[in-house]
Amino acid sequence: MRNLGEKSELAVRRERLWSTLAGQKLHAFLTTALPNLHYLSGFTGSNGALLLCEDRALLFTDPRYATQAPQQSDCEVKIATGPLTREIAKWTRRLKVKILGFEQNRISFEEHGQLKASLPGVRLKPVLAAVEDLRMVKSEAEIGTIKASVRLNSAALEQALAHFRPSMTEVDFAAEIEYRMRLLGADSTAFETIVASGQRTALPHGHPTNHPVETDQLLLVDVGARVAGYASDMTRTYASGKLDAKIHRMYKAVLESQLAAIDAVKPGVSCAYVDRTAREILGGYGLDKLFVHSTGHGLGLEIHERPRIGKKERTQLQAGMAITIEPGVYQEGLGGIRIEDTVVVTARGSEVLTTTPKELVVL
Amino acid sequence: MRNLGEKSELAVRRERLWSTLAGQKLHAFLTTALPNLHYLSGFTGSNGALLLCEDRALLFTDPRYATQAPQQSDCEVKIATGPLTREIAKWTRRLKVKILGFEQNRISFEEHGQLKASLPGVRLKPVLAAVEDLRMVKSEAEIGTIKASVRLNSAALEQALAHFRPSMTEVDFAAEIEYRMRLLGADSTAFETIVASGQRTALPHGHPTNHPVETDQLLLVDVGARVAGYASDMTRTYASGKLDAKIHRMYKAVLESQLAAIDAVKPGVSCAYVDRTAREILGGYGLDKLFVHSTGHGLGLEIHERPRIGKKERTQLQAGMAITIEPGVYQEGLGGIRIEDTVVVTARGSEVLTTTPKELVVL
Repeated sequence: MRNLGEKSELAVRRERLWSTLAGQKLHAFLTTALPNLHYLSGFTGSNGALLLCEDRALLFTDPRYATQAPQQSDCEVKIATGPLTREIAKWTRRLKVKILGFEQNRISFEEHGQLKASLPGVRLKPVLAAVEDLRMVKSEAEIGTIKASVRLNSAALEQALAHFRPSMTEVDFAAEIEYRMRLLGADSTAFETIVASGQRTALPHGHPTNHPVETDQLLLVDVGARVAGYASDMTRTYASGKLDAKIHRMYKAVLESQLAAIDAVKPGVSCAYVDRTAREILGGYGLDKLFVHSTGHGLGLEIHERPRIGKKERTQLQAGMAITIEPGVYQEGLGGIRIEDTVVVTARGSEVLTTTPKELVVL
Repeated sequence: MRNLGEKSELAVRRERLWSTLAGQKLHAFLTTALPNLHYLSGFTGSNGALLLCEDRALLFTDPRYATQAPQQSDCEVKIATGPLTREIAKWTRRLKVKILGFEQNRISFEEHGQLKASLPGVRLKPVLAAVEDLRMVKSEAEIGTIKASVRLNSAALEQALAHFRPSMTEVDFAAEIEYRMRLLGADSTAFETIVASGQRTALPHGHPTNHPVETDQLLLVDVGARVAGYASDMTRTYASGKLDAKIHRMYKAVLESQLAAIDAVKPGVSCAYVDRTAREILGGYGLDKLFVHSTGHGLGLEIHERPRIGKKERTQLQAGMAITIEPGVYQEGLGGIRIEDTVVVTARGSEVLTTTPKELVVL
């Protein structure tokens, strides 16, 4: 059993959510999105729902998780032997809920219809990204976990690099990184590892192939671990020997752009401003047209979270946000370069969590 | 470029989908779910949409995939520099679409609202699981890929078992399996590998921990690979030495149940019947109450697809369906046993693709 004397971080999160929802006059709020469920209840199973009222929190799941759910969560666990919706409907009636908030960005059109049909007399009220908004700003404990994830990710890449040998295939190198990650204690990768060499680096999302990494080529590695649920994310671009002067210039531009964007990160600054900063440096090199994605994204229990560090994102950075900064340039027929760190917004600026060196390394 | 003389499997799939939708009088159908997009267009990126008309197929994605999309797909590729929805709306107007079908089980309540707002004058018509229904029955080429995935999965487990040593942790063993999988050519795992030992085998979804695998214990391994997009799925339960007579009896019951359920698989039989067959055998041993999940599920581009091999699933099996058969029993404080194969429904019965032995192996 948990220590009931001290209010758990989970209970604090639920109270905060409830207070942000106060204006909506809900009797209860239903979340079914797994990362939100994890965040609010501690439960990490693959099927569940949380019905949150002012004074109760009911966690619904199926019999596969009858042992796990009460171990992980401080909520009242209800095991549904049939569809979860039926059990949720039963409790919604029992708790006399007349206005139920639901996650309009998470629930499918179909699930909304089913919920409506199973809850006659209940008004369903759409709520937009309330839990996701809360999740943007991380607690100290969460930042500690993200740091652990970032450190493990860097250690795995470092160990894999020690095993790198020319003529290794992209797949073999990806396998080596992921193996090290696992042995170091990661739950899994946070996303499909990207390893691309030579001209294939011009594909921003190049999946590893059986191509051997040839000498005098670029090697782009984008890798992330999941540790205790939290993601890390890092990209490094290496040289497997000598590179063209044009590529050296591209590398210099991307690194300068990345450092400038990190410098721009501080509370009160808009995400669009950080994105523009990265783009302007690349513009000075005439390379901004080759930067075909946004500068970064929030990360935490999901690999892509709010806020997006993009052209049109007006959200202002706040201390406690965890984001990536990852400008890149990609030229078909030549190659691509991306440099990415995981960064936390602090009270006065930012802390770059990723410690892996960023100067061009020749393998 | 693809060979335009021969109609590609992709074009055949789109034609079939279009003909199943004929009754709905749609001018176009929009799919945004990634596995459905992969199935209909060949594109495997992380962001995209397909607008399908009777005589055209438009694939929308963002600039990160400008090179990859036309390489993978035979559709007309449209690269959107802003939100995909804006580009889709533009083409919907240009193609004079007045009735647009959308995937009610895939699109969120929020996305539906955005689509509606961006398409004034267009009638949005909900379509339920049309692509998922098509995907249930696999082509010969798809079955070939699933077979390759199953074979690779078995080879990875076999290689990892050769490296098994007592006192290895659950995490180390999971790392070994995943590493072998990668080296053998898997894109990734198909789901988070389950490795649980001792009493933890009673958790149907036990994530690997740093517990060493002790002697005279159960060891449950549930593992799947993704190969060229297609999933495999297998569970084996091993003994790390001597086991209790009670556990031997449980193993015998689960194996008998699994074999009986496989025997029940043939075209025309309902999924519920297969599920009942597995349950009845366990009932004969007084163990049916400990079987807390369904007997299996379809698999393909997703690890869980239709049909579900469950109590209430009336869908009839058809030749070409790929499913898992995986009864299990779980007793808290003692342990759990599950045995799972990937099986294809054939014209006259079934073919068990998984070749890994099922008799109890002592490691």
